[in-house]
Amino acid sequence: MAILAWLHNAYGRDLIDGIRAALPGEDIREWPEAGDPDAIDICIVFRMPHGFLKPFRNLALMSATGAGIDHYLLDPDFPRGIRMVRIVDHDFASRMADYVLAWTLFHHRDVAHFLAAQKRREWAYKIMRSAREVRVGVMGLGQMGRLAAERLAGVGYDTAAWSRSRHEVPGVACFAGAEGFGPFLARSEILINLLPLTPTTRGILSAATFAGMPPGGVVISAGRGGHLVEADLAAALRQGTLRAATIDAFPVEPLPADSPLWDTPNLTVTPHCSSTASLRTIVDTFAENVRRFRAGAALLNEVDTLAGY
Amino acid sequence: MAILAWLHNAYGRDLIDGIRAALPGEDIREWPEAGDPDAIDICIVFRMPHGFLKPFRNLALMSATGAGIDHYLLDPDFPRGIRMVRIVDHDFASRMADYVLAWTLFHHRDVAHFLAAQKRREWAYKIMRSAREVRVGVMGLGQMGRLAAERLAGVGYDTAAWSRSRHEVPGVACFAGAEGFGPFLARSEILINLLPLTPTTRGILSAATFAGMPPGGVVISAGRGGHLVEADLAAALRQGTLRAATIDAFPVEPLPADSPLWDTPNLTVTPHCSSTASLRTIVDTFAENVRRFRAGAALLNEVDTLAGY
Repeated sequence: MAILAWLHNAYGRDLIDGIRAALPGEDIREWPEAGDPDAIDICIVFRMPHGFLKPFRNLALMSATGAGIDHYLLDPDFPRGIRMVRIVDHDFASRMADYVLAWTLFHHRDVAHFLAAQKRREWAYKIMRSAREVRVGVMGLGQMGRLAAERLAGVGYDTAAWSRSRHEVPGVACFAGAEGFGPFLARSEILINLLPLTPTTRGILSAATFAGMPPGGVVISAGRGGHLVEADLAAALRQGTLRAATIDAFPVEPLPADSPLWDTPNLTVTPHCSSTASLRTIVDTFAENVRRFRAGAALLNEVDTLAGY
Repeated sequence: MAILAWLHNAYGRDLIDGIRAALPGEDIREWPEAGDPDAIDICIVFRMPHGFLKPFRNLALMSATGAGIDHYLLDPDFPRGIRMVRIVDHDFASRMADYVLAWTLFHHRDVAHFLAAQKRREWAYKIMRSAREVRVGVMGLGQMGRLAAERLAGVGYDTAAWSRSRHEVPGVACFAGAEGFGPFLARSEILINLLPLTPTTRGILSAATFAGMPPGGVVISAGRGGHLVEADLAAALRQGTLRAATIDAFPVEPLPADSPLWDTPNLTVTPHCSSTASLRTIVDTFAENVRRFRAGAALLNEVDTLAGY
């Protein structure tokens, strides 16, 4: 059997070369040189068009090239019954925690205030609250959400987290399910989104969610573009329901040059840079999953394609 | 015996009221209502003019109102032989660690790049390094430096520290003394200053120090104004020896409106806001030291007035 790779991403040839080097015994074919489609039982693809997988009738395992898998599952022809894995490891989650900490501290320490004052040559002293007086809330307790929550708690923030099913994270107040969402929001001055995108979480960054937060809260989203209701965010910032926001993922990317979000007050736009799997992470995680699959062992980061994460 | 207080600071009447409430058995006098100067054996004063303490011949203990004590020791009439304490506690150090983390992450994650790109409506994607690939160095291992180094290491930075005498901090590469300074600087891409100001450390943020760092490094100073050689910093930023800097303490404060530092490229000026002792911290630490002094017990945060910290 053979592996099909279609990897148009930032690493260029290095990624396919790395995968080949890590799996010397495998027949690895690069799209469009797929050969006999019936020989393909594993694939690693990125941004495939709908229907792309249909000809590969013996496909049994598919790997994403990153952490998000929602765009794959939106394909109406996504093959039923195949197993799916995604790329996450400690390094990838740690870069995401760096992003979350950077922007949580940016807003907590009111960096925008000091940058603006400097432009006016103004010595605008302000007493800052301690991290332990700041209540942050992380939505999503996958590998990324969990590490971000642990890091936030570790540097002293009064940290909560919310997820679909119940989790326990030491030092973090954990809320779960629909009934936990309201109380979680009500105590989250800084709300951090690291949820997977599923039919349930689509559009969760909405007017209703913002209204459930303490007045003048902050939203940081490093989730998926489909979580964001752009008009609701802009309105909440203009009306002061939210004090500020930093958003890394948008429904359309790159964010169009004529988007009103670029100059919405107190909104920082980051270009989907919150975390990137390193070449090492993608190669090592994919190769390990191929070896485990061939050996019939439990896979890393297997996705429940029905739950959508 | 009696306590003299002179507390012109941001907390107004609340601070003296808090001290009085915490020390109900003490005779606390507020300048200029000092009464008989010979009755005063303890004082807590801030920004006193030189010679201010001379009339108090029985003064035996003096408390600063913050962490820095260099300005007190510059008084040529500072009384010999009195004991001196300063204000530091976990909360005060923790707010300082918040500042250090906020600006370390700001520079590591190149927030200025994203803010500038947003102004141009430009989706300027960049791959970020992981914290563990970023080498940070903390100068000073007092209570503040130590906590900052621990927090930096805790969130994954490759962390070193340098101090006059040798210390051990788990997870932090510790350098000490004159012979350790060069090797410490050579590995510190992001250099964080939390030193006390002493004759040895005055002017330490100089061209020679910047030249000892890896090219394109970053300096964050939350130490004292006397550490900074302003012209050297501006030159290092203009020449690119340093990629960026964030400075919280200046030789003259507030930084004068005509200072060239306000618009030095890649320099962020913060208005001595890195950390502020809370009212609770000042009251509790001072009151505890008064009780310990009266009981003949070891004092908190006692200063070696010869070493200057």
